[in-house]
Amino acid sequence: MYALKDFGSFHVGGRSVTVTGRETRLLHFTPELTWQYDPNGDFLIEQVYVQYFIPAEQTFPHPLVLLHGGGLTGACWETTPDGRPGWLHDFLRQGFAVYVIDNVERGRAGFCALEGVWGGEPVMRTAAEAWELFRFGRPEDFAAGKPFDGQRFPLEAMESFQRQFVPRWTSTSEAQIRGVGAALRRIGPCVLVCHSQGGYLGSHAALEAPDCMRGVVSAEGSGWPAQERISSEAVSGAPWLLLFGDFIDQSPRWSDARRETAAFGEQVQAAGGRAELVELPDVGFPGATHMFMMDAHSAGISEWLGAWIRNNCGAKSLD
Amino acid sequence: MYALKDFGSFHVGGRSVTVTGRETRLLHFTPELTWQYDPNGDFLIEQVYVQYFIPAEQTFPHPLVLLHGGGLTGACWETTPDGRPGWLHDFLRQGFAVYVIDNVERGRAGFCALEGVWGGEPVMRTAAEAWELFRFGRPEDFAAGKPFDGQRFPLEAMESFQRQFVPRWTSTSEAQIRGVGAALRRIGPCVLVCHSQGGYLGSHAALEAPDCMRGVVSAEGSGWPAQERISSEAVSGAPWLLLFGDFIDQSPRWSDARRETAAFGEQVQAAGGRAELVELPDVGFPGATHMFMMDAHSAGISEWLGAWIRNNCGAKSLD
Repeated sequence: MYALKDFGSFHVGGRSVTVTGRETRLLHFTPELTWQYDPNGDFLIEQVYVQYFIPAEQTFPHPLVLLHGGGLTGACWETTPDGRPGWLHDFLRQGFAVYVIDNVERGRAGFCALEGVWGGEPVMRTAAEAWELFRFGRPEDFAAGKPFDGQRFPLEAMESFQRQFVPRWTSTSEAQIRGVGAALRRIGPCVLVCHSQGGYLGSHAALEAPDCMRGVVSAEGSGWPAQERISSEAVSGAPWLLLFGDFIDQSPRWSDARRETAAFGEQVQAAGGRAELVELPDVGFPGATHMFMMDAHSAGISEWLGAWIRNNCGAKSLD
Repeated sequence: MYALKDFGSFHVGGRSVTVTGRETRLLHFTPELTWQYDPNGDFLIEQVYVQYFIPAEQTFPHPLVLLHGGGLTGACWETTPDGRPGWLHDFLRQGFAVYVIDNVERGRAGFCALEGVWGGEPVMRTAAEAWELFRFGRPEDFAAGKPFDGQRFPLEAMESFQRQFVPRWTSTSEAQIRGVGAALRRIGPCVLVCHSQGGYLGSHAALEAPDCMRGVVSAEGSGWPAQERISSEAVSGAPWLLLFGDFIDQSPRWSDARRETAAFGEQVQAAGGRAELVELPDVGFPGATHMFMMDAHSAGISEWLGAWIRNNCGAKSLD
């Protein structure tokens, strides 16, 4: 049972693009419904979709904003592949208001299909790529389905997980950062919880909107803003929690990411901010994969994280 | 305030596609994170996304399933462009359980970006096309912004409406019908409320899953199954409500659609089923556009529709 004060959605951000000089052509919208399609005119692109849930008894003043990683949408926070409640539900039950983003190009935000506006092409993810990138096991053990010892991702539901995959571009970071920024400014003071590519995009957006930030949680963020962006003003308002799962040492990619993340944390502290790097095995969650919001102990991790947020993101001042 | 017994989401349906023989290439997922992308392997495509909301006090046994039209996603049922609650909220408050679909290729269902698997290309909609197709006014009056007299769409929020637009293919109808069918079978006995292209797709899926249907509401469906599909078994379980808005006579396209829809209704009745064609101006809602779930009187229309469903879709038998 849920008692919600409100729930709903909105689109925000984006820009207008005008197409001219193209030829019209006949399209069949359905076999019966044809349409002389005119590709010229005004289009709106690069908006962001946000769905929000406000609990009747909100016990923390600042909402959480959940930002998915690459090749995924906001749906990744709703349910685990094996059908347990996702972090959206966990945090609501903990008394947080929760905003879930579909970033530019993903899910209900839509993508830009206009010729020549976005570079590159959308790419899709195989199970084998997920296996390696998300640290379910060693790449060479994918075919045999032999995961890391003790890993906690529900691999029996791999096909269900794959249904959540959507295509991604590799050329849209700037538009995605603007989109997240537009969402943050609309939402106001909040704690941003961002995963993987979302950590890269969200950290840029957070540094550009310090007045909106009461905390930034990066769940294995993949890349960081350059040091010149980390001004004392940009990091004055919000503590940063930099989370990693298990098996990092067994992945050169994620070993690099942890080193770069630690360097970012030091830069935040050097600028007068606060940053804490936590490895989940050290706080009671061994076996955490890159998708730890879906692992078997996802509810325990969200409880730990909710407590961290309550203890660290309450006040504008960090003093 | 909302009291919900439950809410959540799932993906359902789709198929596996195996790609072989393509060359790997280097991608930049973020500027820092490169990846030797292997486009070969197993992909899951053509799944459907469903989000559901179950009220604490459900006062009608069969859930409503809301299926969007072309170039839109399930978000079209959540909010009107001018920020009023959408039909999802209206029906929940009326005591219905509500399931909202993102069909194949749309929203959180994702689309297939694999080369050569889907035909055609995604197309986007301009404001001018929406103006004509959705009957906001005469095409020649778009530039001047002069709508039909008495039309009720919130045109002052046109830009907000455009943010809901997403690309669509014109080659995916079969996959979309399969996707809706998979959702209906997972949900079980229900009343399907489908809009525009969703009427075309939903009517096919409904005829193929008569055991799941307790009613079918087509909001200006654009196209119908061929007569040989309308067997007595296919139409035995559920009454059909075929809704139209206003200004039909001023649009050759929608005049054709109304005529084809009336013919479909007669075929349903000839097969022993029940079908009713209702024009909204005749039941108290003049000025209804093609987007009548967003018009200024959208809440009145959903109230009328909820009552129709209670009065007509209660029983398995139509006797």
